[in-house]
Amino acid sequence: MAKAPVLTPQAEDFPRWYQDLINKAELADNGPVRGTMVIRPYGYSLWERMQQELDARIKKAGARNAYFPLFIPQSYLTREAEHVEGFAPELAMVTHGGGKELEEPVVVRPTSETIINEYFSKWVQSYRDLPLLINQWANVVRWEMRPRVFLRTTEFLWQEGHTAHATDEEARDFAAYIHREVYADFMVDVLGIDVVLGRKTPAERFAGAVNTLTLEAMMRDGKALQMGTSHELGTNFAKAFHTSYLSREGRRELVRQTSWGSSTRMVGGLIMAHGDDHGLRVPPRLAPVQAVVLAVKEDEAVLAEVRSLGERLRAAGIRTEVDDRTDTPFGRRAVDWELKGVPVRIEIGPRDLADGTAMLARRVPGGKEPVAIGALPRLLPALLEEDQAALVRESRSRRESATSEVTTEREAVAAAVAGGWARIPWSALGPAGEARLAEHGVSVRCLVAEDGSVPDADDEPGTVALVARAY
Amino acid sequence: MAKAPVLTPQAEDFPRWYQDLINKAELADNGPVRGTMVIRPYGYSLWERMQQELDARIKKAGARNAYFPLFIPQSYLTREAEHVEGFAPELAMVTHGGGKELEEPVVVRPTSETIINEYFSKWVQSYRDLPLLINQWANVVRWEMRPRVFLRTTEFLWQEGHTAHATDEEARDFAAYIHREVYADFMVDVLGIDVVLGRKTPAERFAGAVNTLTLEAMMRDGKALQMGTSHELGTNFAKAFHTSYLSREGRRELVRQTSWGSSTRMVGGLIMAHGDDHGLRVPPRLAPVQAVVLAVKEDEAVLAEVRSLGERLRAAGIRTEVDDRTDTPFGRRAVDWELKGVPVRIEIGPRDLADGTAMLARRVPGGKEPVAIGALPRLLPALLEEDQAALVRESRSRRESATSEVTTEREAVAAAVAGGWARIPWSALGPAGEARLAEHGVSVRCLVAEDGSVPDADDEPGTVALVARAY
Repeated sequence: MAKAPVLTPQAEDFPRWYQDLINKAELADNGPVRGTMVIRPYGYSLWERMQQELDARIKKAGARNAYFPLFIPQSYLTREAEHVEGFAPELAMVTHGGGKELEEPVVVRPTSETIINEYFSKWVQSYRDLPLLINQWANVVRWEMRPRVFLRTTEFLWQEGHTAHATDEEARDFAAYIHREVYADFMVDVLGIDVVLGRKTPAERFAGAVNTLTLEAMMRDGKALQMGTSHELGTNFAKAFHTSYLSREGRRELVRQTSWGSSTRMVGGLIMAHGDDHGLRVPPRLAPVQAVVLAVKEDEAVLAEVRSLGERLRAAGIRTEVDDRTDTPFGRRAVDWELKGVPVRIEIGPRDLADGTAMLARRVPGGKEPVAIGALPRLLPALLEEDQAALVRESRSRRESATSEVTTEREAVAAAVAGGWARIPWSALGPAGEARLAEHGVSVRCLVAEDGSVPDADDEPGTVALVARAY
Repeated sequence: MAKAPVLTPQAEDFPRWYQDLINKAELADNGPVRGTMVIRPYGYSLWERMQQELDARIKKAGARNAYFPLFIPQSYLTREAEHVEGFAPELAMVTHGGGKELEEPVVVRPTSETIINEYFSKWVQSYRDLPLLINQWANVVRWEMRPRVFLRTTEFLWQEGHTAHATDEEARDFAAYIHREVYADFMVDVLGIDVVLGRKTPAERFAGAVNTLTLEAMMRDGKALQMGTSHELGTNFAKAFHTSYLSREGRRELVRQTSWGSSTRMVGGLIMAHGDDHGLRVPPRLAPVQAVVLAVKEDEAVLAEVRSLGERLRAAGIRTEVDDRTDTPFGRRAVDWELKGVPVRIEIGPRDLADGTAMLARRVPGGKEPVAIGALPRLLPALLEEDQAALVRESRSRRESATSEVTTEREAVAAAVAGGWARIPWSALGPAGEARLAEHGVSVRCLVAEDGSVPDADDEPGTVALVARAY
């Protein structure tokens, strides 16, 4: 097309492309209070599908949903020293309620470890009450100085899981299960993003954790995005909140805990991992709308066919929308669905109908071709799975080709600054080298074992550090 | 049973029965900040089922989910005079964020009409953008002086719908559609509560509405509970936020709006509408667990049968849980499932198994009888529907028998104080009489037309006022 592009091209200005896309695809607006966001219906429908898929996996892991209060007494946060140090600078404080100044200011939850432990310590009495596996879907607030929609917002939506176990081993296994079987399974199989699973360095751990497992994704500009984390908390919160149980042997023992979270930040990750200069590309398994059937113009037979095909596609199990808004120019509607990244667009006009065909436009491979209308309900499921597989393949090959194996700190910085990832032996970098990376806006995203697995300790021989710029 | 009752009997102390039940059935705990609550997994699973059922109906009505920020600039609230007057005494204010005092304090949303209108005024340009139908699932905060779990809490969970239409008639029809086809349909058909649909008097309207439609339910102590409301907002917020559109004729017109909400308060309504001295009774269509299969004792064949029956019931579409925790005494587990109100309990012990039978205990009609195990998957769906119907029938007949037709204010007060509802001609009471009712802790719950329908105006001839004490 010779027309001016709808979006700033990625190669020209990636951050501006991101903001353009969020506006034009009607995903979100900035909120009136600095750093907050309004998630518009289409953006929210992406989040709803993420919730559905994650919630099913979380329930399969044995966790049950619950809800803890938004407001936490300030004193709770100070009980775990590292935790309060990590979160104090980001807190929002409520000082007045019901027209009066409060006796003790309350904190708007930045995360819920403290308030949840207060209740775990009441609910857990004996080994019979363990493991206790809880998840909550909630909003949290972390005052954000450099906000960016979906990626860093003062308020965001997330799920946070919190568990208590009898032994360190059980807690460690559960954190690892969430990391791999819940988060990685969802991100690779549904989001189509080939995330790297690793272990955070001590410097990058969650405030209060003894170990943080992470999933890191490469965006199309080569930067990294942390997509979710799963923490082993050891006995840090159990000590602070006296969360203990009577063992089978009659001894009082502290519980061993985990917490793990994933948020609306994943919507930002989805955009930047798959989006191109024409807009978003939503992986079919995630897509709230997998196929849209468009009436090219006002025509009774066309409208009837479009609606009937919509029904038949829905009956075939395809999430389908019908676009019969013929008072809006066809070209504008087609560009809009492309922007929104709907995997399959089916366009039917009077001439197509006369031929018994529709134009089939696929968002992932691109291009358009005529297809017999009657064949579509049978054809589409396989095409959607093809597109799903193509996205994850593309994600993997982009990451692989943009990742360099290096041996020196200098090379690692150079690779990251040039817009790629670097793999460097952790022994060649170490905590001192890690600290120096910050001067270049570069960080260790995670540690991985030589064979690609997640190391069991920070100092395992052969551990590799993944170095990159990050959102 | 000769044992001490698990709960304070309803007849002895209804509020204490309510609190006992919430504790013993592990529905919720009080939160640390006054008026907040912790919704425990079983309580939350009731709310999740309510969300699923309502969300499907809301989507069918054409509304799409979105998410607006928790924090609202204080100045927004003051733009609609009645609205700010209504909510000012209940606001929680954030004055500090990120370690600094904020330039303008922000309000924690008590409801979202103001912030949503700010965005509607950007999104709505022409008649083509109408109707705009939005819903959000969110937490809201209203500082509560006399909190009671689920019924009046400082923070609660709800859905709030917000719509903009071209004409008064469309807005009125939509508010009525939500009232009847979304809320009443859900409350009667799923919750099994025979709610009364009516119109609020001007004194009881939502702050900023021109009309409020309500659904009122009778609790088992004869008091009323407002289960949900649907408001016509006219142009009140549109004027304050300049939410206007260009009509087909090229004129700039204010939009006509509605808003509507239902909350975790419905969990309290569910408890008090159906619960008895043995615990909760959950209507089968709502029940997160419709049937529980219990192993009476540790026995290999019993455990195998219990698990296999669990699978077969699930395959028959029944939400089933298996209770094989044989290290907890059977009696305690049976009482616990009764407390939790699970509609059907199936108990299998070695002797039952030898006979090929199970003991079937139904929560709604009560009692226990032996049934052939093989027959259960086929039998249960019909029994569950029977129990569902019985609950709504009971709810209707309780309300009918506890409602008196009266003609004087004095009789209305007497009926309400005695623990029932009174129907009195609105012309015999009027706003002055309504104001006097408050001295007796009694209120007009709603106005209904003579034929039971919802009146189109406050002064329609033949309008009847429903008078009661309320939660």
